[in-house]
Order: sequence, then structure tokens, then C-alpha cells
Amino acid sequence: MLKGIAASAGVSVAKVYKLETPKVVIEKKAGVAEEEVKKFEDALEKTKKDIEGVKERAAKRLSEEELAVFDAHLMMAGDPELAAQIKAMIENDCVNAEYATEQVANQMVEMFESMDNDYFRERAADIKDVTFRLKCNLLGLTIPDLTSIAEDSIIVAHDLTPSDTAQLNEFVKGFATEIGGKTSHSAIMANSLEIPAVVGCPGVCDACKTGDTLALDALDGVVEINPDEATIAKYEAKAEAFLKEKEELKVLKNEKSVTKDGHEVELAGNIGGFKDVEGVLTNGGEGVGLFRTEFLYMDSDHFPTEDEQFEAYKQVLEGMQGKKVVVRTLDIGGDKHLSYYEFPQEMNPFLGYRAIRLCLKETDIFKTQLRALCRASVYGRLCIMFPMIATVKEFCDAKAIFEEVKAELVAEGVAVSDSIEVGMMVEIPAAAVLADQFAKYADFFSIGTNDLIQYSMAADRMSEHVSYLYQPYNPSVLRLVANTIKGAHEHGKWVGMCGAMAGEPHAVPILLGLGLDEFSMSATQILKARKVVKSLSYEEMQGLAQECLNKDTADEVLETVKTKLGE
Amino acid sequence: MLKGIAASAGVSVAKVYKLETPKVVIEKKAGVAEEEVKKFEDALEKTKKDIEGVKERAAKRLSEEELAVFDAHLMMAGDPELAAQIKAMIENDCVNAEYATEQVANQMVEMFESMDNDYFRERAADIKDVTFRLKCNLLGLTIPDLTSIAEDSIIVAHDLTPSDTAQLNEFVKGFATEIGGKTSHSAIMANSLEIPAVVGCPGVCDACKTGDTLALDALDGVVEINPDEATIAKYEAKAEAFLKEKEELKVLKNEKSVTKDGHEVELAGNIGGFKDVEGVLTNGGEGVGLFRTEFLYMDSDHFPTEDEQFEAYKQVLEGMQGKKVVVRTLDIGGDKHLSYYEFPQEMNPFLGYRAIRLCLKETDIFKTQLRALCRASVYGRLCIMFPMIATVKEFCDAKAIFEEVKAELVAEGVAVSDSIEVGMMVEIPAAAVLADQFAKYADFFSIGTNDLIQYSMAADRMSEHVSYLYQPYNPSVLRLVANTIKGAHEHGKWVGMCGAMAGEPHAVPILLGLGLDEFSMSATQILKARKVVKSLSYEEMQGLAQECLNKDTADEVLETVKTKLGE
Repeated sequence: MLKGIAASAGVSVAKVYKLETPKVVIEKKAGVAEEEVKKFEDALEKTKKDIEGVKERAAKRLSEEELAVFDAHLMMAGDPELAAQIKAMIENDCVNAEYATEQVANQMVEMFESMDNDYFRERAADIKDVTFRLKCNLLGLTIPDLTSIAEDSIIVAHDLTPSDTAQLNEFVKGFATEIGGKTSHSAIMANSLEIPAVVGCPGVCDACKTGDTLALDALDGVVEINPDEATIAKYEAKAEAFLKEKEELKVLKNEKSVTKDGHEVELAGNIGGFKDVEGVLTNGGEGVGLFRTEFLYMDSDHFPTEDEQFEAYKQVLEGMQGKKVVVRTLDIGGDKHLSYYEFPQEMNPFLGYRAIRLCLKETDIFKTQLRALCRASVYGRLCIMFPMIATVKEFCDAKAIFEEVKAELVAEGVAVSDSIEVGMMVEIPAAAVLADQFAKYADFFSIGTNDLIQYSMAADRMSEHVSYLYQPYNPSVLRLVANTIKGAHEHGKWVGMCGAMAGEPHAVPILLGLGLDEFSMSATQILKARKVVKSLSYEEMQGLAQECLNKDTADEVLETVKTKLGE
Repeated sequence: MLKGIAASAGVSVAKVYKLETPKVVIEKKAGVAEEEVKKFEDALEKTKKDIEGVKERAAKRLSEEELAVFDAHLMMAGDPELAAQIKAMIENDCVNAEYATEQVANQMVEMFESMDNDYFRERAADIKDVTFRLKCNLLGLTIPDLTSIAEDSIIVAHDLTPSDTAQLNEFVKGFATEIGGKTSHSAIMANSLEIPAVVGCPGVCDACKTGDTLALDALDGVVEINPDEATIAKYEAKAEAFLKEKEELKVLKNEKSVTKDGHEVELAGNIGGFKDVEGVLTNGGEGVGLFRTEFLYMDSDHFPTEDEQFEAYKQVLEGMQGKKVVVRTLDIGGDKHLSYYEFPQEMNPFLGYRAIRLCLKETDIFKTQLRALCRASVYGRLCIMFPMIATVKEFCDAKAIFEEVKAELVAEGVAVSDSIEVGMMVEIPAAAVLADQFAKYADFFSIGTNDLIQYSMAADRMSEHVSYLYQPYNPSVLRLVANTIKGAHEHGKWVGMCGAMAGEPHAVPILLGLGLDEFSMSATQILKARKVVKSLSYEEMQGLAQECLNKDTADEVLETVKTKLGE
């Protein structure tokens, strides 16, 4: 029995498929520059095609958001700087293409890994993934094709790369890896695919071979190899109980999200594009609380045209069958970039030129999006919100551009819905503090907790040195949420939340008590949240919320909630 | 008559001293590597000595804070990477040292300037300053010695470097430069030296020569060359009126800071070290509201020892003659680094590992400082505050370390004052929001508006793209200030402010009305602020403050204040 980290809930018993990636051994050899450059260029072309192929196969099971990693890989494979460095080394040192590739790759990986920062370490992982594929292509080695798995299996591996996880098919009943943590890429993918996963489980590779039987308990983070009949039965019972609860949740699909004492709220889903609409509907989402339009831009090699955007928005609005769809206008900058637009170099990009700040300067980009949205508005129930609003003036300026675009379209004879709601994200402390004034102008608020927490605490959660300050339960964060809701309700406006917090089982009781109207989360969290809402009394949660607002620390708040829930 | 930007208030009429910096013309020549390297090394040594000389002369007139630029220059001149690159070019390309220096310098300057960011552009200016000196030394050119000016003069130049401004003596009655803005280095220095300056005045160099008479009106941003007698008389009258007002302010030196209706507040000064104490006292400061101890660390090539720190704190406490001294513990990180300590690479250093976050991990560094402070506490009235506190837990952890250190010293038989107050900076939104809870544990608050505004608005004011969001008068910022004061007063604690806002003539009325107890600012702002306080009614300002809290925008707040003041 081996211990690891339960990274994606579930229990499975199945045969082991041990992922053996090819051993890449590279020797330095003298090479004829011209030939080696040609070899390199061919391998690079093949690598790009391979990644495109993986992306295409993955597109069947993954959301837009999850597919974004392959755009990063394609961009890296297409990076002229990488190719130029490798070719320069081939030409200057007259070495073989494999050797030059490895040297340049190692340099880049080392550089990124030496930066003591999660973000850069992820980039290092991307480079490794892409250049591993490149080296295999140069050496004529075949990377195992996980799509070929045709019987129920649990994958055991040192680690799964983004390319690996993207290829998992319906026969894969879970995986166990030597390394990784709860927030590693493979863990996120497992959650999204709803397959059990235990990561950070050292020794698991040596302990088993393909064909062994493996019990994977990703509720308690345990792996057992070749267990006896009784043990298998125990795990199968546990798996069944887990699935049964899942089934029970499914019953809630068409029910209202209403507390025991009759207070109704709305549970919605976050999406990155049309592909994610089905997931929201099958999980009983009552709307889309956040449509992240930046994927439209990031998946493209040019600013998407008005018509391209119109089609995308129309598809989503129609797909949601008249249910509310809250579209966030372009939220780019910070750590999200476009290959075809040059952002200024800034010392603190999270405190920089991004989102609405960019849209208010680059009004052509902004107007194109607003035109597409207005045109699509007649196909459903559209709400538009602006990200990163800090001042009333910014909101009013953005709203004025919307009104201008709408009037233009009407003058052109284009049909535009008259009931588009125009609201804003509350993710900057200044906006939360001044919510009552903003509520005079905005039709609704949506609280973005990820950024709101980062700015309120002045701590970048990507930096491991200060990630302890990412505290959703800190009373100061709760007070900002409370003030936002109070300010909106004073003016008869509604408030949603589309940050990670909205789906947290311990946060839902507090947020409910504070009067939050709409909770938007990952589609897979919706039914569980509905179960929680249905089990609670609104009146009691109002009392709980007030109690939490007057605590000193996040730990005390969490304790208070747990005590109230009898945990 | 030429128009420019009034960067440092005042009016002067005097002879022109035109600063003609040597023309550096560099040709590429073949060189014997060994000789050129030697030449380079000698010039570099001389450059370091020159900078040290400039710093030493400047130390007579400048504060610790202003001298820090020379440490940056010395560090740059001593940077092994810079020297290595130049030597490598000399050796690989067999060129003359001047040429190699220029090439490497240009590359670095270009790199920094291409970063679209004020911070990096300042670094580019530093490199130019240092390498200009280096090239002059290589070519045997003499940089004009401004310390030789021996009759009343107004300096006219294309621009003044930090080295130039540091050498200005008492005969310099002002300066006019072609380039620069209100926040450029030369403007800041002029303010600190209290000499009139007009910057960003294109054409001024060509329009005059050494020996001309120049009227410099740095109230209205105007320069007149060789004016007639009547015009000279006009400017002299203006200069006199300006100086008269200054004199009138001096009368307020020993007066209390009390409103017309008898509400008393405290006006204190910000200091970077003992050198700045005199300025605070001669300007009527009632205490030190912020002693920035980081200069002790930045001016050193090692972590200052307990004894070194003890001496520094004792000197300041004794210098302040029993008046309150608020010492901020080490606030390093973000954009402030130490040559002898390696900070992690972070994507957003302003949201990263800095100040108390570092001190709570590197407890040895923290304890050394606290020991030194405790030992010095018996020489005056000491208050200690922790920077960048985000959570109650952080404050309590830091306070516990203080108590531990104090108990240790007492056990060792060392005298420690029993009346040290232990408080915190309120510069993170979370702390302002939760002030009432913090006030249970902290003896006082000091609001750091620079950071509080940046985090509340999620905007780095160093980035020109979003610097418009640095809005001290935004009602959301005022509400955070109001909440901080309210929370403190509920628990009988006092609140100061040590950000730039505390000395702004339009902010003082609001802050007074909100109940701020202590205003800490640059020494030169104190008397003006006292005049403002004495002209106001506390009761009326309370009404004004409440009105401002319910405005929508910063512009509306500023309008409201101006209307109230009859401007």
C-alpha cells in the first residue's frame, strides 16, 4: 500500500497500464550543418503536426480553457527564437541536430526553473514537453499512443504531461503518478475529466508493472497493488458508494436551488466557449455566470473579427436556451497574452495594463467585441460585464462606448435586444469598497474572488512565498463581499460571484447568508453546491455570516462554519 | 521668454552658468587586448573613486534617502557582469576600451529603455551616468566641477544627472533644463535643496550663454533671458513675496498644530536616518512619523549588526529630544533590494515576498533589528511599526517575536523601555477593511497611502499605462482611511499617516475631518501644513469629510474640497 495525494475524487480497481516513455539518449556528434538543419526543420514540422493532432483528439473531451495549453505548446514550437538558437548552434559548432536541440532546451529549462516562481516553472514544463517530442522525432522514437488503450486501465507513470492527459480516453479509469500536487496540471485535468487520480506517490512506478491489478483510492490518497479478493471487494464497495452519491446529485439536476426556508438563489456555470455549454446544462446549471471571452482571442492568430465573434456568442446564447448568459468582455494582459499583440513590459503585470484598461485605450478592439455582442443579443438573454473596473469613471466610460455601439447598430437597422444588462466585475478592492456608488450605474455585479483576494491581501498567489496569504475565508475578504452585496441591494441590483470561492462547500453557507444572488462555478461543482444550498436555512446562515464578519482570522471563520454545519 | 515646467517653487534672478559637458566622440580602433584591459580597469577604478567623492561632497547637503542613488551607481560600477562584458569584447574583438565600453553601455541602455516602464528607464539613466563618467576617464576628458561655482548663478543645461545635482552648492540659485518632468530626479533634488527649478524647457540651452542674466520663475514655469530693468524688478518683487511667505511660515515653527476650534493634531516628519533629524526639528516637526530603516541596510554591504543598528537608532532617538519617533522595521523587497541578499524572482514583486513577510521567515534578521531597537528604546520615545501587515495573525506573530526579544534582553540585564508602542502600517486593503479587529492588538496605526492606493486600485503607479489610477482623492481610498481611523478610535488607539498624501494641502482638510491624529510628511512640507491646519475649523472639516466619502469620483472630491476652501 502506497500513500499519495488524492487529487481527483473517486475510487477504481483495474489493470495497470504502465506508461513507459522512450529513453532519449543523445550523443554529441559532428554533423554537416546543412543536413542537420534540414533534419531539424523536418522534425520541427512533424512536432507541430503532432501537437495539432493531440489537440484535435483532445478537443473531443476537453473544454476550451483546458485546450489552451496546446496553443502555448504550438506557440513555443513556432517560436522563431527557439529555432534560430538551435540552428545557430548546429551551424556554429557543426554538431548534430539532437545535441543542439538538447543543449538549447536545457539552457531554457534551467533558466525558467531557476526563477523561483510557479508561473515560470510551468513554462519550463511546457518547454520540456515540446522539446521531448522534438527530440523523439529527431531520433525516430515513438511516443506511446495513449489513445490506443482499449481495455479498462489505470495509468501508472512518473508524471503525466499535458499531452498525455489530453489523450486519455474512456477506458482510462484513473491514474497514479510519482510526482505532482493538487494544483499540478495533471490533477486539474483529472478533475475536469472526472477520473480518480493519486499524484505525488513516490515508488509507485517501481512497485508495479503493466498487467498488475491496482486499487486506486483517490478519496483517501491510497494505492494498493495486487490486492486480495477481500480488499478488492472493499474498494469496489467504496467506488459504488461514491458513484451512488454522484447519482443522487444527478437527481437534483432540474430542481431549484432553494434553502429549507424558501430562499432561492441561482447556480450557474463558468465557460470558456460553446464547447462548455453542454456541461453546464447536464449539470443543472441555471445559466452561465461567466463566459471568459479571452479564449476566442487566445485561440486565434489575429483579433477575431466581428463576424467570428458574433457566431461564437450566438452559438452560446442559443445553446443556453434563453437562460441568462453573463459575458465578460476581453480580459487580457497580466499573465494572459496574445501572439499578435505587443504588451508593454511592466514590472508588476498584475497591477498593470490589462482588461478594461486596455479596452478603454484600444477602443477599436473593444467596439468590435461590443458590436458582435449586441448583434448576438437577440438570440438569448445577454448580460455584459467589464473586467478590472477600479473607478466609477471607467465604468461610465465603458458603458458609454456600449451605448454608442448599440445606437450605431440600431441606426444601421440591425436588431439589438433592449434588455441587455450591463454590469461589472468586482475584483478590485476599490470597487468593493465603493459598491453603493457603482450600483447607481451598473445593472449587476459579479465578484471575482481570485483577483479580489490577491489585491486585498497584496499577494500574488502564483508566488509560493506569499501564497499563504490567499485566504478566501479571511474576514476582510468577507467584508468586501458583504459590502458589495449591500451596495447593490440598496439600489435593487443583483450580485453574482464567479471566482473559485463560489463553489466551495464551506464558503456557500457564508455567501448565502450574505445575500449573494448568483453562484457561478465549474459545471462539475454545481450539483454538489445545490445539495448544500437545499440543506441550509437562510435565516441561520444570515446569523452565521454576521458572526464570520467579526472574526479576526481565516482559521476562526472556517472553524465557525464547520461548527455550524456540525462537522 | 521661454515656457517650461515649474518643478521646484521659487523665483531667482542671476547670471547664467551654462553646463557644457564634454563631447565624447569614440572611434573604433584596433587595440592590444592586454593594454586596453589595463586601461579599462584603471578608468573603472577612477570612476568608482569619483563617484565616492561626489557622494562624500553631496553628503553635506543631501539626506540619506537622496544619497541612495550613489549607492546604486557604485553598485553598477562594481558590477562584475558589466566589467566582464566589456573585457570580453576587448579581448574577443581586439578593440579599444572606449569603444567596447560604449557598445556594451549602449546595449544595456537600449535594453532598459525598451522596457516601457518608468522604473527601468531610471535604471537606464543610471547606466548612462556611470558609463559617461567611465568614458570621460578613458578619454582623459574632465567633467565640469560644479562645486567650483563661486558666484550666484543659475545653471542652464540639457539635463542634470544625479551626480550633477548632488554637487550644487549654496551659490546655485536655481536651474533650467531642456528636458525632465515634475517627478524627474533633478526636480526631486531641487525641491529637497529648496532651490527654484524649471525643467522641460526646450530651447533654453541655445537661447543663452554663460554670463547672460536670467530670470527664473519657477512658480509659473517661465524663463526670461537678459530681461530689462523693469522686468528684473518685477521678478525680484515676486521672489521677495515668495520668500516672505516662507519666512511667515517659519514663525509657525514652535506653534501647536491646532484648528480654529481647538482640535489639536500632530505634524511629524519622515526620515531616512540621523542626517534628516535636523531638518525635521528646524521645520517644526513634532516628532518623526516614519523612520525608514531600510537605508541602514541598503547603504551597507552586509546586514547591519545589532551594534551598528543600536547606534543609528540611539542617535535618532537622542536627536529628537524625547519627541516621538516611529521606526518602521525592515521594508525590503518589491523594488528595493540588497546587494548581499538574494531575493526570489517573482512575476509581480509588489505582490510578493517583502517587508514583514520576509522578516517573519528570516527571523534572525528581524530579531537583530528588534534587539537593537529595544536597546535604543531608553534614549527617547520609541514606537515600532511593522510594514505590509495583511492579516491579524501576521501582526500577532511579529508582536510575539518582539516580546520574546524584549524578554531575552531583560533576562540579560539590559535596560529596555516599558513604554515602547508596537503598531503597524496600514497599507494593504485587507488591513484597512479589518482595522477594528487589528486595533485590539496594535497600539497604533500608520496609514501608508502610496501602497494602499496602489493595492486598492490594483495599479502600479510606476507603470505609466495605469498611473492615472493612482488617485489619493478617490472616495474608495478615503473610505479605507476613514474605516482605519474609526476602527482604531473604537479601541482608543491613535492613527497616523506617512504617505505622500499626508502633506497635500487639499488632502489635509479631509484627513483632519476624518479624525487623523498624526500627519507625517517631508520636513519641508510641515510648516505649510501647519498653516493649513490653523486656518480650518474641525467641525466644518468633519462635515466636508463625510460629504467626500459619498462622492463618486476623485475629481468630484477635489472639487468639493476646493469649493469649501473658497478656491
